[in-house]
Amino acid sequence: MNLVNQVLDEYGDLARGALFERLPTREPRKYLYDLVADYPRRGGRGMRPALHIASARAHGATLEQALATATSIELLHNALLVIDDIQDESEQRRGQPALHRQHGMPLAMNVGTSTYVLSLIPLLDNVTRCGPQVALWVIDRAIAMAEACAEGQALELGWRRDNVMDLLPADYFDMVLRKTCSYSTIFPIEAGAIIGTRRPDVHPAVLRYAFLVGAAFQVQDDYLNLASSRPSYGKETYGDLYEGKRTLITITLLDRCTPGERAEIRAFLALPRESKTAEQVARVMELVRRYDCLERARQYVQRLLGAAQVEFDIGFAELPPSRDREFLRQFPLWVVEQP
Amino acid sequence: MNLVNQVLDEYGDLARGALFERLPTREPRKYLYDLVADYPRRGGRGMRPALHIASARAHGATLEQALATATSIELLHNALLVIDDIQDESEQRRGQPALHRQHGMPLAMNVGTSTYVLSLIPLLDNVTRCGPQVALWVIDRAIAMAEACAEGQALELGWRRDNVMDLLPADYFDMVLRKTCSYSTIFPIEAGAIIGTRRPDVHPAVLRYAFLVGAAFQVQDDYLNLASSRPSYGKETYGDLYEGKRTLITITLLDRCTPGERAEIRAFLALPRESKTAEQVARVMELVRRYDCLERARQYVQRLLGAAQVEFDIGFAELPPSRDREFLRQFPLWVVEQP
Repeated sequence: MNLVNQVLDEYGDLARGALFERLPTREPRKYLYDLVADYPRRGGRGMRPALHIASARAHGATLEQALATATSIELLHNALLVIDDIQDESEQRRGQPALHRQHGMPLAMNVGTSTYVLSLIPLLDNVTRCGPQVALWVIDRAIAMAEACAEGQALELGWRRDNVMDLLPADYFDMVLRKTCSYSTIFPIEAGAIIGTRRPDVHPAVLRYAFLVGAAFQVQDDYLNLASSRPSYGKETYGDLYEGKRTLITITLLDRCTPGERAEIRAFLALPRESKTAEQVARVMELVRRYDCLERARQYVQRLLGAAQVEFDIGFAELPPSRDREFLRQFPLWVVEQP
Repeated sequence: MNLVNQVLDEYGDLARGALFERLPTREPRKYLYDLVADYPRRGGRGMRPALHIASARAHGATLEQALATATSIELLHNALLVIDDIQDESEQRRGQPALHRQHGMPLAMNVGTSTYVLSLIPLLDNVTRCGPQVALWVIDRAIAMAEACAEGQALELGWRRDNVMDLLPADYFDMVLRKTCSYSTIFPIEAGAIIGTRRPDVHPAVLRYAFLVGAAFQVQDDYLNLASSRPSYGKETYGDLYEGKRTLITITLLDRCTPGERAEIRAFLALPRESKTAEQVARVMELVRRYDCLERARQYVQRLLGAAQVEFDIGFAELPPSRDREFLRQFPLWVVEQP
C-alpha cells in the first residue's frame, strides 16, 4: 500500500501544480477565478490524474506527454464536484461548506460551467506533446466521456426527482458506469493507454479493469457515506440519505424490506432535503443495519475488485514491469483500504 | 430589411436542421436528450449562426465549411439560455415556462452543461471540412470566447449578489462585451472570417463591427424588456427589474435620480425576486420614465449602430459584393427594427 499512496501523492501533486499554473490570474478574480481555485485548494487525493499518468507511463509514454491530460482530468473532476454539490444541495465538500453555500447558487454554477470549459484547454496541448492524431483521439474519447457523465447524472437526478422505486443493481451499475467510472477511471486509464501506445484501440480487459475499479470505488464511497465517522471523509455523514440518492445500499434495502417499511422509505425519500429529520434518517439507518445492507455493499466491493484483478492480469500482461504498472496492480486494494 | 429576414430564416433553418441531426437519439431521453431539444424546438431567430455563415461566405468559404461552426454556435446559445434562466430565476423563455420551471433545477442544470459540451463536438468536424490548422484556430477562439462568457456572467451575477450600485456605462459595456458579444457576434463573425480567409488574423474593423452590433443588440434587448408589450418578445415584461439586472437603463437611472430615490431603488434591487411586488416594479418604471432612461438607451443603440456601419465600411471594404456581405451591411438596421 505504501507504493499506491506514494504514487498518488507524487502524481496528485504534479497534476495540482500544473492545474494551478493554468488557472487564469486576470480579473474577475473575486467573482470567478478565486472561486475556480477554491475546490482544488482544498486538496483531494489526485486519484484520477494518478491513474492517467500511471496508465500512460505503463503503456510507454513520458510524464510530459501525460501531464496535459492529467491536468484536464483534475479540472474536470473539480468542475463536476461544484456542479454536483449544487444539484444535490450538498452542505460540505472536503471538510468545508460547499461552494454554493459560500457564494450563492448562481455564482457557484458559473464557476462549475467555467471550470468545465477550462478543463478542455489542456487537451489542446496534446497536439504538440503527442502529435495531432493522438490529440484528436483523446479529444474524441473526452467528448464521449463527457456525454456519458451527463447521461449518468441525468439518470441519478431523474430517479430522485420522480422518486423511482423499482431499480435493480443493474440499473445502478449502468448509472455508475456513466456518471462515475467514465471520468474517474475509464477515461483516465484509456486516454493513458492511447497516449502511451499511440493507438486508438485499447485492450478490452484494460477498459474492464477501469470500469470494475471505478464501480468498486463508487460503492465504497456509498458505503463510507453511511458507515464512516471519520472527519477526513469530508462530506456530511448520511448525506446520501438526506439527498435521497439511489445507492446500492438503498436499492438493497428496498429489495429486502417489508411492504410496510418500503412505503415508509418511499415517503422518506420523497421529502425535500430540508424536511428530513435526524430521527427519520436514524430510522432508515436502523433498517439499513437490520437488513445487512452495508455488509452487502462490502461484498460487492470485494467481488468487483477481485474481478478487476483478473482483468488486470489479462489487460496488462504484455506490458513490461514498472513502478506505474505495479501501482495499477495494487490499486484495487487501495480502494477498500484508502486512508 | 427583407434581405436580412430572408437570410436569417434561411441560415437559421439550416443551422437548426443540422443541430437536430446531431442530437443523440439514444437513452436517457426523458431525463436528458428530450430536454436538450426543448429550447431549440421553441424556435429562435438564428441570428448567431446566420452571422457566422454570412461572415464565412462573405470571406470566401463554402456553406459546407461554415455549417459545423454554425451548429456549434446555435447549440452553445441554447446551452447558455438554459443556464442563464436558472441563474436568473427566469420564468419564461420563448413564450413558454423556463426549462427549470418545467423539470426542476437539477435536471435543467444538467441539460445546460450537457448542451454546452455537445456544442463543442461540431468544431471537431472542421478538421475534415476546413483542415486541421483552421480547425485549431477556430477551437482556440471558441475557448477564448467561452472564457469571456464565463467572465461576463461572473460580473453580472456578482454585481447583483453584492447589490453593486456604483457602476458606470463603461462597466456595463465591459460586461456585455464578454457576456453577450463574445458568443453572439464576435466569435460567429471572427470564426467565419478565419474559415473564409484561412488566416488566423481578422481585420480589426471586422471585430469592432461585431462588438458594436452585439452591444447594440444587448442594449436593445434591455430596452425591449422594459418597453415591449409584444407577446412575441418571449420573456416576461419587466423581467430584468424582477431579476435585479444591472442594465444600461438601471445604471442611467441610478446616475440621474435623487439620493432618496437611489436609496429606494437600492432597497428594491436588494430584494429577492419573489419578494418584489408589481407595485414596486411600477414605481421603478415610473422613475425610469421620469428620467428618460429608455430614451437614453435608444440613443445608445443608434450611436452604436452608426459606429458599426462605419466599421463595416472599413472592415469589409476589400471583400467582393455578395448577398452575404450585403446582409452584414444591412444587419445593424435590423437590430432596431427586429420584428
